[in-house]
Amino acid sequence: MKKIYSVWVENRFGVLSKVAALFARRSYNIDSLTVGETQDKTVSSMTIVSSGTTHTLEQIEKQLNKKLDVIKVRTYAEDKAILREVILIKIKYVSAERRELMEICEFLKADIVDTSNTHMVITLCDTPERVDNLISMLRKFNIVELTRTGTLAMPKCSEAD
Amino acid sequence: MKKIYSVWVENRFGVLSKVAALFARRSYNIDSLTVGETQDKTVSSMTIVSSGTTHTLEQIEKQLNKKLDVIKVRTYAEDKAILREVILIKIKYVSAERRELMEICEFLKADIVDTSNTHMVITLCDTPERVDNLISMLRKFNIVELTRTGTLAMPKCSEAD
Repeated sequence: MKKIYSVWVENRFGVLSKVAALFARRSYNIDSLTVGETQDKTVSSMTIVSSGTTHTLEQIEKQLNKKLDVIKVRTYAEDKAILREVILIKIKYVSAERRELMEICEFLKADIVDTSNTHMVITLCDTPERVDNLISMLRKFNIVELTRTGTLAMPKCSEAD
Repeated sequence: MKKIYSVWVENRFGVLSKVAALFARRSYNIDSLTVGETQDKTVSSMTIVSSGTTHTLEQIEKQLNKKLDVIKVRTYAEDKAILREVILIKIKYVSAERRELMEICEFLKADIVDTSNTHMVITLCDTPERVDNLISMLRKFNIVELTRTGTLAMPKCSEAD
């Protein structure tokens, strides 16, 4: 089972380290994590995706809420959240493959953001599922490098009103 | 001065915690951080943006390279890298503001991904500069929530050949 946590923390030295240590000490899994700014310079928001048993996932939420530097923790019902993730994939290709690569990008609304005679960089910003889908369609090509951000999450509008 | 580090690490418990502790212990700044999967399930890639003096930024690279779980560290000359970041912004609006909000989104190629009578969620996947630009254009509206991933980086094609 997977769960997404949005965690608002004080933007100061060592907070990420404390949160990461909490997961490490208790062997909680981190599938992905992003930390970035919010509209308030004194506050950072982390999005953590974790997997485990229902019990473990509840424990994570409780433990996060206990941390002094943690301002707020939110979890999501998956169908009530907007999820986004970015991927950058560099592919080494031969000309005979170019047409199909272009077609896959068009099909999944991915962009080719850089090219040379032998390499191209493809990017997609979409739901984690659609990012996975792009990877599986590109697997038969020569993937030289692949990097993705963790998942970013926000409740849909109806939830916020 | 800012610097971007791509750090490939063994995908196992506690690695993020060790890297975060390195930054905390030495009071190195973390502007943003993302951890996600790569094409190899045993390897995760982190992208860390840090700011500090030239000396500090060099030290960070050296310290990262010393860590046992770190497989490889790469830094970027800014003009030789493709940078991407995602933002989600929820705005509370009144009808008189809708037209201008739509115009700003069209202007910056941002998407309105969810709406209600009173709220909208805007997303943009672009360079950190253009994401900052969107935020500054939206600042006069009622931003209810704002969350962004850290920066994701990959060398341009010419660099990889």
